[in-house]
Amino acid sequence: MRAVVMHAPRDVRVEDVADATLQKPTDAVIRLAATCICGSDLWPYRGTDEVSEPLHMGHEYAGTVEEVGAEVRDIKVGDFVIGSFFASDNTCEICRAGYQTSCIHREVLGTSGGAQAERMRVPLADGTLVATPGQPDADLLPSLLAASDVLGTGWFGAVAAEAGPGKTVAVVGDGAVGLCAVLAAKQLGAERIIISSRHADRQALAREFGATDVLEERGEDFIAAVGGLTDGLGAHCAVEAVGTHESMHQAIGATRAGGHVGFVGVLHDVAITGDDIFMTHVHLHGGPAPVRRFLPELIQLVWDRTIDPGKVFDLTLPLDQAAEGYRAMNERRATKVLLTI
Amino acid sequence: MRAVVMHAPRDVRVEDVADATLQKPTDAVIRLAATCICGSDLWPYRGTDEVSEPLHMGHEYAGTVEEVGAEVRDIKVGDFVIGSFFASDNTCEICRAGYQTSCIHREVLGTSGGAQAERMRVPLADGTLVATPGQPDADLLPSLLAASDVLGTGWFGAVAAEAGPGKTVAVVGDGAVGLCAVLAAKQLGAERIIISSRHADRQALAREFGATDVLEERGEDFIAAVGGLTDGLGAHCAVEAVGTHESMHQAIGATRAGGHVGFVGVLHDVAITGDDIFMTHVHLHGGPAPVRRFLPELIQLVWDRTIDPGKVFDLTLPLDQAAEGYRAMNERRATKVLLTI
Repeated sequence: MRAVVMHAPRDVRVEDVADATLQKPTDAVIRLAATCICGSDLWPYRGTDEVSEPLHMGHEYAGTVEEVGAEVRDIKVGDFVIGSFFASDNTCEICRAGYQTSCIHREVLGTSGGAQAERMRVPLADGTLVATPGQPDADLLPSLLAASDVLGTGWFGAVAAEAGPGKTVAVVGDGAVGLCAVLAAKQLGAERIIISSRHADRQALAREFGATDVLEERGEDFIAAVGGLTDGLGAHCAVEAVGTHESMHQAIGATRAGGHVGFVGVLHDVAITGDDIFMTHVHLHGGPAPVRRFLPELIQLVWDRTIDPGKVFDLTLPLDQAAEGYRAMNERRATKVLLTI
Repeated sequence: MRAVVMHAPRDVRVEDVADATLQKPTDAVIRLAATCICGSDLWPYRGTDEVSEPLHMGHEYAGTVEEVGAEVRDIKVGDFVIGSFFASDNTCEICRAGYQTSCIHREVLGTSGGAQAERMRVPLADGTLVATPGQPDADLLPSLLAASDVLGTGWFGAVAAEAGPGKTVAVVGDGAVGLCAVLAAKQLGAERIIISSRHADRQALAREFGATDVLEERGEDFIAAVGGLTDGLGAHCAVEAVGTHESMHQAIGATRAGGHVGFVGVLHDVAITGDDIFMTHVHLHGGPAPVRRFLPELIQLVWDRTIDPGKVFDLTLPLDQAAEGYRAMNERRATKVLLTI
């Protein structure tokens, strides 16, 4: 089967690899309908994360179940399914508390073949996959695929930030996750949603998703501008959707005492000191989004056409042109690239 | 009037100073019934915090109102009152959200005369002070005084950690605040309360306050031991009541994914990295305890003799012997020193 393999930073190839197969009785194998390139795929692409061996890329997926292991009970061959980037049993105490990405049996997707491929193995199929109510219309595919990661991640960021009615929410990061956090905050009932963005197309999508204020300021200027919009108090909530030291401090700084910061950007070189969190009185919560917690609700919202997170995909390419997709995202020519199979 | 003044690390004197007076129409002046020495007073005493000018020490107090300014409405001369270490208006949006220690008008107590004195000025008297239901019996005095800081701080730590029914709570730190966090977790309904302590007297008081498990392990050994008591998952909650890099990491490490860490030790030289909080999935919240939020409830619990946090005082000295009190706490001969006036 065809699959995307990263051999070194900036060296992405589409190659023939061994076909995905069932390895455990709790596995399923799915045929991808579509996959995509994640902002976090750019960390190794840019050399920030080491590429010590060829990486089978991709962890976002939607597709049709072709095989199930002997112990799979709920997921059936022929189901159209979406899953999260970590496999989870969805039955352990940690999963039941809503933290499936810390499941005691979790497995990172992609360890034996990533999602940027024609087929993929999904471990712990019953705990990981959620089937759609039926076979989806083609136009729903981008939004269903978005639920696999960027929507679920932005949603978790907004939930971790306790976005809700009457709240002012600041979103740091205008990538696909930040934009989905805007959408999530809106759905959760936030009164005011402020995002920092300097890209006209992202600004427009942010407003379409529910942003009430689009600021061009960054860093301390952003913090001051949010203060100016909130009687000097700061936002009730902030979602950090980048993962750098600067963005984390921007999110903390924009939040009022007693407020909540939800962080979902994969943290790189971040150092938080006592001064950052002691006198600021913020709540900090985040990490790899437990997308599985939210998938049933998110799939239904997409299915009912209440939300359209698939709009974050602004470039669609066939799988064989994945290398161009990586280049486009790296050069910020695209926010989020969908790969058709 | 007599007051405790720190001139340099380890140089604490009781001196005659200018009498406390009303400075603003929202002030009150109280005559102390008792005060005490705080673990945080040891930071300058040990030279960790700089002593650039003579410090009028003390921020924990209970006593009788002797004077009120023209704009004080609720607090009356003759009231027996307890207050927090930060003055607050208790009316601003931040106060109403329960974060009086981040009040937009907050004032640090002690800037014009600390609580280790015969009298003290309390700014924003109506927002800062809470009167007891009547004149207290003498034996209630230690517990009422404890409410001013160590009880309120331990309580906030337990609340920030979301201690409650069915929860396992790990407490890091067996000082007065840690012991009060045990008491708070018990009152909040926690099922299991684990504390790290190597001092026989503190172990005994921890058990009296509600600890179910007293561990002698520290650091990684403590984390492993908590794991051993919780099916390898870690505690649901941890209260950090020390304020060092090591204790903060001990608290985070002892907490399961999705759990809550409440930190109330004044943080010194703490650095939290992305690894500490991203993959661990913990919630972090803390800072200077908004004691004012809890004072009415805590005073009532003491008044009704439901709790007896005054037991954390294991040495009582007259104000004039404050220097010996500092020495005793610094040398760990005492957990918490009460000074009678």
